[in-house]
Amino acid sequence: MGDQAEVLPCQRFEEAFQSLQQGAVDAAVIPMENTLAGSVHENYDHLLHFDFQIVGETSVRIVHNLIAAPGVSFRQIRRVYSHPVAINQCLDFFTKNQQVERVPFYDTAGSVKMIMEEGLKDAAGIASALAAEMYGARILKKSIEDDRQNFTRFVLLRRRDWKSKRPVVAPKGWKTSLVFTIRNIPGSLFRAMSVFALRDINLAKIESRPLRGKPWEYLFYLDFLEHADEERCRNALSHLGELADFLRVLGCYPRGE
Amino acid sequence: MGDQAEVLPCQRFEEAFQSLQQGAVDAAVIPMENTLAGSVHENYDHLLHFDFQIVGETSVRIVHNLIAAPGVSFRQIRRVYSHPVAINQCLDFFTKNQQVERVPFYDTAGSVKMIMEEGLKDAAGIASALAAEMYGARILKKSIEDDRQNFTRFVLLRRRDWKSKRPVVAPKGWKTSLVFTIRNIPGSLFRAMSVFALRDINLAKIESRPLRGKPWEYLFYLDFLEHADEERCRNALSHLGELADFLRVLGCYPRGE
Repeated sequence: MGDQAEVLPCQRFEEAFQSLQQGAVDAAVIPMENTLAGSVHENYDHLLHFDFQIVGETSVRIVHNLIAAPGVSFRQIRRVYSHPVAINQCLDFFTKNQQVERVPFYDTAGSVKMIMEEGLKDAAGIASALAAEMYGARILKKSIEDDRQNFTRFVLLRRRDWKSKRPVVAPKGWKTSLVFTIRNIPGSLFRAMSVFALRDINLAKIESRPLRGKPWEYLFYLDFLEHADEERCRNALSHLGELADFLRVLGCYPRGE
Repeated sequence: MGDQAEVLPCQRFEEAFQSLQQGAVDAAVIPMENTLAGSVHENYDHLLHFDFQIVGETSVRIVHNLIAAPGVSFRQIRRVYSHPVAINQCLDFFTKNQQVERVPFYDTAGSVKMIMEEGLKDAAGIASALAAEMYGARILKKSIEDDRQNFTRFVLLRRRDWKSKRPVVAPKGWKTSLVFTIRNIPGSLFRAMSVFALRDINLAKIESRPLRGKPWEYLFYLDFLEHADEERCRNALSHLGELADFLRVLGCYPRGE
């Protein structure tokens, strides 16, 4: 879509899925996993309930900055607003600065917007450098996160009827995402995984979610590092179909960074 | 421990783990999984960081009730306080009663306590029948949850040096919980699972969590339905030890309901 893409921010993940379904947007960018906090399980559930295709992925290095209104100095700060996940990723900062109170807020960038709109002089937000720029705020402290191995993986979703007009290239190879359920019998997950292992198909990730209405049974979300149309992948998926009660390919897309 | 057990409530899960570590309590009861919301991932992380043993488990059917002060009628209610997870499990109720606002609160029982202490007449909480009894409140509507297949699995934790004085019986058989990491090579999770499958050891659950400092690598938590001291289980664990970079048995305990 390039630079011409117009961005529609949503307060909740479900809103982004709904906007795509209603046709208010052409695509949705959804976080699936953070290397510190883990999977965003809510979005795995939405991927199942809304029937979209994953057409791309990217990983973004997360940098948390302390951001306040222009002219405000660090010594004035008494409260810091941000999303609870961001606050929890800056615990060293809060340990070193006990005078500062943590206040949970619905969104990282939103905390900067609110501080600017309300004209707060004793408060800061934790957000990206882009948020500071967008709302005319200043970065007081750069990169206050505890752990720099902090990445979030996003997927790009489109409606099922969309097809790329240009040939899609995959310089780093392909990834395929799927979701399935299997009968709750001994060894069933092992057998499901064997359809990939016995064909030398590499898995990147497996995630389980509870199956509604069947206590202690699970849905499995799985990513493998091949294109679903390759012969051994087609065979693997057909083999998995023999074992699975339910199987859906969520998408096949160029592997990100 | 029986009826003589004295209960120490904690506001956050981590406090329960800390109280056990500091010796302020003899045991901790920790929720690990709900059949609708999924795993309580925070507690999987705590199980790793605090080195306790799991000595028991139980599953509790979750019933959400609408609870208010005595004398307050349903028509007076304008706000309903509860833990966000409980609120999200009563969405049909909120759809049918649009006049009622949902207010997130840190705890289900705590919402009833607060309503009683503040003497609120236009507010209710969502909590268990026990909470109504404890705080002298009344149930306005019983069982307002959307889905009755709502169970939470709790584990009982004790410090590593504790040993039961009485013989432990397991009428429903045993369960063993463990956590491990494996080298990130093709087929490694499949091989790890084979150590159980090839010995006919049934798995009850597998859960992955991100490995700190190694983006896109995972810790695996696994439960199997046998006692770890059985010969084939000892062999399986020793086999898993060959493949795993890290392996810890978290506990071996009588299987719950």
